[in-house]
Amino acid sequence: MTIKEALSALNNFEQTSFALNHAMGILNYDGSTVAPKKSAIVRAVTQAELSRIAYELTTSPETVELIETLYANKAELDFVNARKAEELYRDLDRTRRIPKDLFVEYQKLCVESDAVWHEAKVNNDYASFKPYLQKMFDMTKQIALCIEPEKDPYETQLDNFERGLTTETCDRFFATMKAGIVPLLKKVMDSPYQVDEPLLRNNFPTAVQKEFSTFVMGVMGLDPERSIIGETEHPFTTDFSKNDVRITTHYHEDAPLSSMYSVIHEGGHALYELNIGDDLTMSVLGSGVSMGIHESQSRFFENIIGRSYEFCGVILPWLTEHFPAQLSGLTQERLYRAANAAAPSLIRTEADELTYCLHIMVRYELERMMFAGKITADDLPSEWNRLYKEYLGIDVPDDKRGVLQDSHWSFGAIGYFPSYAIGSAYGAQYLEEMKKSFDVNACVAAGDLSPVSDWLRERIWQYGGLYAPSDLFRRVCGEFRPEVFVKYLEDKFSGIYRL
Amino acid sequence: MTIKEALSALNNFEQTSFALNHAMGILNYDGSTVAPKKSAIVRAVTQAELSRIAYELTTSPETVELIETLYANKAELDFVNARKAEELYRDLDRTRRIPKDLFVEYQKLCVESDAVWHEAKVNNDYASFKPYLQKMFDMTKQIALCIEPEKDPYETQLDNFERGLTTETCDRFFATMKAGIVPLLKKVMDSPYQVDEPLLRNNFPTAVQKEFSTFVMGVMGLDPERSIIGETEHPFTTDFSKNDVRITTHYHEDAPLSSMYSVIHEGGHALYELNIGDDLTMSVLGSGVSMGIHESQSRFFENIIGRSYEFCGVILPWLTEHFPAQLSGLTQERLYRAANAAAPSLIRTEADELTYCLHIMVRYELERMMFAGKITADDLPSEWNRLYKEYLGIDVPDDKRGVLQDSHWSFGAIGYFPSYAIGSAYGAQYLEEMKKSFDVNACVAAGDLSPVSDWLRERIWQYGGLYAPSDLFRRVCGEFRPEVFVKYLEDKFSGIYRL
Repeated sequence: MTIKEALSALNNFEQTSFALNHAMGILNYDGSTVAPKKSAIVRAVTQAELSRIAYELTTSPETVELIETLYANKAELDFVNARKAEELYRDLDRTRRIPKDLFVEYQKLCVESDAVWHEAKVNNDYASFKPYLQKMFDMTKQIALCIEPEKDPYETQLDNFERGLTTETCDRFFATMKAGIVPLLKKVMDSPYQVDEPLLRNNFPTAVQKEFSTFVMGVMGLDPERSIIGETEHPFTTDFSKNDVRITTHYHEDAPLSSMYSVIHEGGHALYELNIGDDLTMSVLGSGVSMGIHESQSRFFENIIGRSYEFCGVILPWLTEHFPAQLSGLTQERLYRAANAAAPSLIRTEADELTYCLHIMVRYELERMMFAGKITADDLPSEWNRLYKEYLGIDVPDDKRGVLQDSHWSFGAIGYFPSYAIGSAYGAQYLEEMKKSFDVNACVAAGDLSPVSDWLRERIWQYGGLYAPSDLFRRVCGEFRPEVFVKYLEDKFSGIYRL
Repeated sequence: MTIKEALSALNNFEQTSFALNHAMGILNYDGSTVAPKKSAIVRAVTQAELSRIAYELTTSPETVELIETLYANKAELDFVNARKAEELYRDLDRTRRIPKDLFVEYQKLCVESDAVWHEAKVNNDYASFKPYLQKMFDMTKQIALCIEPEKDPYETQLDNFERGLTTETCDRFFATMKAGIVPLLKKVMDSPYQVDEPLLRNNFPTAVQKEFSTFVMGVMGLDPERSIIGETEHPFTTDFSKNDVRITTHYHEDAPLSSMYSVIHEGGHALYELNIGDDLTMSVLGSGVSMGIHESQSRFFENIIGRSYEFCGVILPWLTEHFPAQLSGLTQERLYRAANAAAPSLIRTEADELTYCLHIMVRYELERMMFAGKITADDLPSEWNRLYKEYLGIDVPDDKRGVLQDSHWSFGAIGYFPSYAIGSAYGAQYLEEMKKSFDVNACVAAGDLSPVSDWLRERIWQYGGLYAPSDLFRRVCGEFRPEVFVKYLEDKFSGIYRL
């Protein structure tokens, strides 16, 4: 096979590969949003079949020849094709180490287990989910060991979600976080200036909150012809190309900021995908490069932009106009403090910016213990509760608000959580760099986020998977310095709590 | 390949085939319900790729060998497998006559054209849809000629939607309908007892209508764990297995009966699919056998059950309770008459039972003229309007309420429309037969539709695609006698209009 033939075959391979991923993604999205309850068993069959077709496509002699040809000749390819060759070769190399039956069985388990988890959470019934969870940990570990038999399988998992991330980096990172956050949180808790906003304790009808979502998406610059918002119990983002990105939220009538911050968080993910370069969309490099970089976008928008004093000024007029009975008298300062109330809490997705990392540390510890065989699914609820007491000082009243709260493990995302914390810390360095280029606060205060988006598009979004995440971050911000994030938190919460 | 090997390979083939259809179906459903506008171009690529994979699967040497082995040995197979062999052989035989590129291009056109039609209808802009429509007719005809080069391609199309249906049958059927309906309609129009229900000219909030949909679905016995209702501009039903059937409706705040009859119509389709035999679901015989039989279920529930005097009595208490301000004073008799008001109208899906067939005749005539090359897409709007004047005596004010009103042509369903009329007529014979077994009116009056469903499940639904549609109908009702339907209409409308 010549290079030219291989490049032509690459086009076809990318298109088929895209189609299969697109179909599997839509099936998942449909399953999470509208599908009837009993459809899960059927969807599991279909996802398994499609993943089998994808596996057979990736490992077919024709594909292997095309990938090996490109990889062997990557010095002669342009940068984009050379990167495609590298990524495809890596993926092929890893995929073919997993037996096909195991690969397919795993996809099926992911669908089934996710359906069982949804029910289990609603019913606060850990026992029904436990066997699936144990199987999920076992099978994920088994697959990690197929891919890299000589390596700690948890390291393989971390690397799956954030290429290059190691337990050593995580350990150092979390130690820095803990050293910075724990004393800061103590000072916050001891401050006489506690946040308590009575105006937000009221009823905020979902219909009006939906209009608010549209307003917020407009402020963020999300194109409504290419992105939509849906409703799910657990907010998420899924993308099928830069012309089709879906975000979801959940409306709580007694807590209007909850949905708003979900929309901003998921909107940050969406902006990344909607702004992939035209030349990369639908290609193997056509999505955000890693979960760490992805979460750094979502959490940057949610917290650093969305929970800023300036952003609160942008949304305040809309809120007081549309909730006049509830929010009359609310000021920018009061909204800002309410949006940043910090205290140990039970639910990760509702956690404030300060305590968030502690929630992640609980999950990181548990995943490592599970993978090391130190605990089993039998122990997870009690270990979860023990670590929440240790790190956050609180008692977990039930599994629904404990070990069952997150969806990630139910669909095999083990090793994903650290990305949230690392991504949060990346954001502080974006802000530091961004401020060298323009007055971020002034833009946000004016309600014009386009300089922020332009900056991120130019440096990050447009590249999709073109640069490895660590390279990409280094190009934008230099070395990763978690202490920048700690400093950001200290400055912010010292202001709010007058420390 | 031995028979045993072929049967085992058949299982795998059916499962993969099911998965591909499931994925393509979900992509279509998603595209029709929630997907962002600009997603259509991406979806077209994916649908084309999946249809290529399906084509390659069906025509691969392994599949051909399995199908030919089973077909050659069908005398030795049990009845179900013999029928599978027949259907698979027929499908293979037809599919492989279509060049792969044409097959794939057609799938892509269907997605693109449907997206263009949606916009064109909203904007009353026939010109933008015209080139797609012409291409759709041309390519559909071209494919029909690939499949059966010696046959009138419109006959091939009729046969695609209702196996065995011919233009000769259609012509005779429509002649009978015309001869019965036109004079009856004249008498109805001349009657001094016209229907005009002022209580229904009011505002009926969508939120309450949604609760009504849930009530109506409950009366019909639709399992909410296996079927869901969504909202689209154009109601439809789609099924992915007996564990996942979707119906959609459209709420008009000024016309509550409109959505109700959509729900009952689509609910009839859904009941059929939800009651396929367990041994057939997800197999090649796992869906309703034809569009004619399908429409006979939906229109039976919509009209013969749903527009009966007795059914009006079942829904009246709910309506007057939940719309007390609007419907106070409404009686069963008045609701029954309002639900059956007959008059020439513009929109097929809103048409009464009496004039419905005339709407179908317009489309049948146009499709035949297009396929015969007597007219082109340039002529369609004016020919549409001419035939509406001729058959229904009314002037079409714009294309939105004329040639652009139906979605069918936009996704390639040319030759489908006659199924609606034939299906309507089948229903009158079901009623005739059903009445021999039990007191249909008494059951409906009691709000218990289960004897009706049991009767249909036992005779029709459970069999999926096991019997050819004409065989199936004959087993249930004997010969097709369209005059039974004419008599039903005469009796019903003579009562309502005191003729």
